[in-house]
Amino acid sequence: MDTFAVPQPGAGLDAFFMAKGIAIVGASDDITKIGGRPIHFLLKYGYKGQIYPVNPRGGVIQGVQAYTSLCELPAAPDMAIIAVPATAAVKAMQDCASVGVRGVVVLSSGFAEAGPEGAALQAELVAIARKHGMRLLGPNCLGTISVAQGVIGSFSIILEQSMPPAGQVGIVSQSGNIGSFAVQNVARRGLGVSHFIATGNEADIDVADGIAALANDTQTRLILCCMETCRDADRLTRALDLARKNNKPVIVLKIGSTDQGQAAAATHTGALAGSDSVIDAVFRRYGALRVNAIEELLELGHAASLLLPGGLPKGNRITLLAASGGFGIMMADATVKAGLALSELDAGTKDKILKVLPLAGTNNPVDATAQVSARPDVLQGTLAALMEDTQTDVTQIFLSLSLYNTRLRGVYMEALKEIRHRYPDRLLVVTSQGPADAVREINDLGIPVFPGIDATASGLAGLVRMGQLAALPETTGYRGAREPLDRAAFSNEYTAKQALAAMGIPVPAEAIVTSADAAATQAVRTGFPVVLKIVSQDIAHKTEIGGVLLNLADEAAVRSAYEQIMQAAAKHAPDARLDGVLVSPMIKGGNELIMGISRDPVFGPVVMVGSGGIYAEILQDVAVQTAPVSEDEAQAMIRSLKLFPLLNGARGRKKADVRAAAHALARLSEFACRHADDVAEIDMNPVLVLPEGEGVVVLDALLIPRHAGHTSE
Amino acid sequence: MDTFAVPQPGAGLDAFFMAKGIAIVGASDDITKIGGRPIHFLLKYGYKGQIYPVNPRGGVIQGVQAYTSLCELPAAPDMAIIAVPATAAVKAMQDCASVGVRGVVVLSSGFAEAGPEGAALQAELVAIARKHGMRLLGPNCLGTISVAQGVIGSFSIILEQSMPPAGQVGIVSQSGNIGSFAVQNVARRGLGVSHFIATGNEADIDVADGIAALANDTQTRLILCCMETCRDADRLTRALDLARKNNKPVIVLKIGSTDQGQAAAATHTGALAGSDSVIDAVFRRYGALRVNAIEELLELGHAASLLLPGGLPKGNRITLLAASGGFGIMMADATVKAGLALSELDAGTKDKILKVLPLAGTNNPVDATAQVSARPDVLQGTLAALMEDTQTDVTQIFLSLSLYNTRLRGVYMEALKEIRHRYPDRLLVVTSQGPADAVREINDLGIPVFPGIDATASGLAGLVRMGQLAALPETTGYRGAREPLDRAAFSNEYTAKQALAAMGIPVPAEAIVTSADAAATQAVRTGFPVVLKIVSQDIAHKTEIGGVLLNLADEAAVRSAYEQIMQAAAKHAPDARLDGVLVSPMIKGGNELIMGISRDPVFGPVVMVGSGGIYAEILQDVAVQTAPVSEDEAQAMIRSLKLFPLLNGARGRKKADVRAAAHALARLSEFACRHADDVAEIDMNPVLVLPEGEGVVVLDALLIPRHAGHTSE
Repeated sequence: MDTFAVPQPGAGLDAFFMAKGIAIVGASDDITKIGGRPIHFLLKYGYKGQIYPVNPRGGVIQGVQAYTSLCELPAAPDMAIIAVPATAAVKAMQDCASVGVRGVVVLSSGFAEAGPEGAALQAELVAIARKHGMRLLGPNCLGTISVAQGVIGSFSIILEQSMPPAGQVGIVSQSGNIGSFAVQNVARRGLGVSHFIATGNEADIDVADGIAALANDTQTRLILCCMETCRDADRLTRALDLARKNNKPVIVLKIGSTDQGQAAAATHTGALAGSDSVIDAVFRRYGALRVNAIEELLELGHAASLLLPGGLPKGNRITLLAASGGFGIMMADATVKAGLALSELDAGTKDKILKVLPLAGTNNPVDATAQVSARPDVLQGTLAALMEDTQTDVTQIFLSLSLYNTRLRGVYMEALKEIRHRYPDRLLVVTSQGPADAVREINDLGIPVFPGIDATASGLAGLVRMGQLAALPETTGYRGAREPLDRAAFSNEYTAKQALAAMGIPVPAEAIVTSADAAATQAVRTGFPVVLKIVSQDIAHKTEIGGVLLNLADEAAVRSAYEQIMQAAAKHAPDARLDGVLVSPMIKGGNELIMGISRDPVFGPVVMVGSGGIYAEILQDVAVQTAPVSEDEAQAMIRSLKLFPLLNGARGRKKADVRAAAHALARLSEFACRHADDVAEIDMNPVLVLPEGEGVVVLDALLIPRHAGHTSE
Repeated sequence: MDTFAVPQPGAGLDAFFMAKGIAIVGASDDITKIGGRPIHFLLKYGYKGQIYPVNPRGGVIQGVQAYTSLCELPAAPDMAIIAVPATAAVKAMQDCASVGVRGVVVLSSGFAEAGPEGAALQAELVAIARKHGMRLLGPNCLGTISVAQGVIGSFSIILEQSMPPAGQVGIVSQSGNIGSFAVQNVARRGLGVSHFIATGNEADIDVADGIAALANDTQTRLILCCMETCRDADRLTRALDLARKNNKPVIVLKIGSTDQGQAAAATHTGALAGSDSVIDAVFRRYGALRVNAIEELLELGHAASLLLPGGLPKGNRITLLAASGGFGIMMADATVKAGLALSELDAGTKDKILKVLPLAGTNNPVDATAQVSARPDVLQGTLAALMEDTQTDVTQIFLSLSLYNTRLRGVYMEALKEIRHRYPDRLLVVTSQGPADAVREINDLGIPVFPGIDATASGLAGLVRMGQLAALPETTGYRGAREPLDRAAFSNEYTAKQALAAMGIPVPAEAIVTSADAAATQAVRTGFPVVLKIVSQDIAHKTEIGGVLLNLADEAAVRSAYEQIMQAAAKHAPDARLDGVLVSPMIKGGNELIMGISRDPVFGPVVMVGSGGIYAEILQDVAVQTAPVSEDEAQAMIRSLKLFPLLNGARGRKKADVRAAAHALARLSEFACRHADDVAEIDMNPVLVLPEGEGVVVLDALLIPRHAGHTSE
């Protein structure tokens, strides 16, 4: 079979978004069947292009002239929907190719998800698509809906009731059900949808294609994404980069966050760097906002959609306004917990508030007292004061259930309308539980409404992060050459450290010796006290067999230690191949970290830093990122550790040399990229971080090759 | 001024709940005034008892015969509402006493919240109430509403629109606004309210009174509580005990959870045991369910109310049912994160499901596929199988937005009705976002509905905990005698340890010496190696001045160490009063904890345990509880530490003697209670926890007296 290039993310998806003609292979008169539903929906929602039902029996289907085969069509449709059983799909796909269809949606199931035979059929579909430059959506997918165009390649149940309104929210989801839920929910909130893409088995088009296509789509301003599995790191990061460059925020719900299958990892790093934390780091780096619940996706998406383009918060300073001190306290607690800051109101603002509300509490939260709802002008005066305060990025007003009270609703609506009119560029959000029509009325002013205090705080935190996306540093990836790593580097601790040292990572000045005399001579050269360690690729747990002796103070101690270690090795590991004994300086003080590289099946080399000793494991106190990382990124990773205060001068300690640690971590990540073909995993454990200005030193290191053949002859 | 006994929590609140006659002092015709609103509401909602407007002008107010003074009334009302300015309230209170009113609500503000003069007026109100055996609600409060009785002593804005329905939810709130919000929200969800009490300034009646009164009220089955400040620990714990004994679950929203003002603490313990974590521990121990957001209070309260009495979960095994695998994964993630367990379905259950749904995934989450919504009998068959599975405590069904689809709503409602009828005792909850009338219809079947996946998981976790309240151990408090502590105990490390040792807390066998010879002799008695430490009440940081020398291996080393320490003391602390030098065995190995006692202004002695060294501080890794704690409670505290795995055999370590540590902690808490009059704070830091069977030993200790006079002559 020839191999053809995989298309760029998003290429050719206009065949689905803008299809001028649509063929339905397996067309049916029965509108409950997957071959009947798309035709029914296209007709019901007034698709303007040509519909070509295809069915061997021909005739008329749902009132439309049908054709016995794709080859009979009077013109080539842009898009074909395949709704025949899996076994008949390959033939249909070939027909699509022969008539010049550009995009094919395979709604049918029975492919890779059904077993090896289905997987073979799926591979045939892909081969045909690649060979003929067609894009394939699915199989086993819910298809696409392009709202403004009325292009429907889907049998989604949501179209039974109504078409969502057209608008700026693009939705791409691997799961058709979750995607449909998102579309329906976005619509129910009165927002419009641009395109909906459900990718199903992702034989060709994947979520990254969807993100990229929506990033390039002029109608779309916000991309909501639900993904289960990422199969191609490069496509995903390129799509996210594109979305960021085109200023289209991406909010991602990644489901299945619990990790499994890390048990087989060869190193601590491998065990600690779970794949979910890797994708989390990737989303963070590429500026996609990850959420953990579908409700959060929708609430944040809704709020963002009301503010886009241009209306996202410029900073994280929030001013809180409530008619009661108690609610104010709750709002303040939630705001601080969400990582936001409470604005410091300036004196002028306080004076303006007191002018209209003499009894108000003018700290933040502002306690507006029940008087604030007495007349619209009082509320207007208070809000106007806050809108004019330049130390505030967002003002949050808590309306509790007041909108259920007809009189209060009138007061609030009038004030909100006036304020929106006078200060169109200032950010205001409302916390209220409804009723739904009042919420809609406030949304129509361009004001986000969150249902609760906590939801508002986490929603604002999300909006603030979205507002900061433009300031994210450019991501570069590894631009150096890939180079082979001398297989000797994998031999033992010494060679591993020497290989890392060649990359600029500090290791102790040390040497391997093979006699007690040589040990003593080397120890004198090193300076006392020294450490002796057995070196053997066959002895993993050196300390446990008595193969490590610390703090040796003079030549005599070194000689005796050498003999003792050799005896221990002979006794506990008689068959081990011994490379000798390592003589190292005894280095004391400092703080321990663990640094390492693991290999993610999708994202490749992953760099990890964690707290030293057993703490990384017990506290899950690690930070990961795909390699390479810049020194700034490395420093941010180190600073994110729970035990970072140990390095940062907690309780009168000396500050540790965090810059040097970041340098070593960045170099390690570079090393992993340069030698990605040869290196599977790396542990540098411990890495001793000395006081500021004194650097770091890697006390032990282990390199694991990708192919076992590297270490043994 | 005479002092009269403070009433028992909840005593005499029937005067408010059941008032047969109500006087309104400061009655007004103007129904927007606080003297007019209560009368208006009493009339509007058909209060059956006698209304007595009191106003110096007399006449007729709102159509009711008014009186010029309380003393003119034809009969004594049970309750009086005072709505006159603060300065006139004392006279009104006296009149209430003289005519035999039993309960007084002071709605007016201008008391303690307004400054010292107001506080003095408030104190007069209390004195009158105490002297005459009256209960006082407020001042500066929103009053009470007893729904079934139509008794209203409130001007709450929520009564403008309608009276909440009568029912089983009792609500007590310090803040009138938050309480009103809760009442309104409970009502909006179609639930009924028994009584609402807003306590305001809490001059007499506090939240504990409200809890106790509702615990004794026959209409009330569930108590929702919002509190800002607890002023009396004993009243609160007694009220919570009563509620638990009467089987009335209490859900508490405690606001203002951020701690301040711990900076002045004299010990680590004092700095680490924040008052919010203390009240958190108290709620946990007494079985009140604490929530962190008003929405959580209301959602959980709603769900619990539907299930009470008797319908709470018996265990934490949840079975999840969704029409799509993706939603199932999200539900499973949320369930596990909330600390719940996924049921293991038995083979019979799986067979039953496959009989009606051949394509279903029958692991948990059950993937019911889209087929489940095709016909009511399919859904019924699936649910019936789950209802009959004895390994499941709760079944959760995800309806996404299906209830917005008329056809699907019919299918789901029919199945739910049938299942509820056939399995009335099995627990079923629904996750759905509405529409509101469909949610109401499902609630009317006694089935809780949560709006989202995360909300369901945290709601179920709350319901499970409420179901476990009956199994909580009885709380006992300290029953021993209070005894003075010899002031010598506060002198130094040695005397502190000896005092703790007398309580059965293990300390090293050690002695104070005052010469190098005595040090050497004592070291021989102790056994080498030993530790020498300077002992002086004037030297807080022994190590830093060179006052501690470790690991001394023989007599010569001890003698030299003694001299070295004395020289260091003379140099660095020439004016310090020296008690001598402590000779202790050098004890190695084990894990360090910190244990201590601090004094909460409300809850008294608080016992704390934390991770050793700097970790308690950096990780906020501490557990607190009010003293005393049982050994079981102490063990649970130790096991709750983030670094507990260090003690529990992580990565091949020896397990530590956790029982011995728990014993020491329990004894420490007992010590704190016995000597509560004399001891302010205690640090035992570090406490070395040796391997299992080898016990614990307190290596250093510090006792701080309550009154400085104890340590100096």
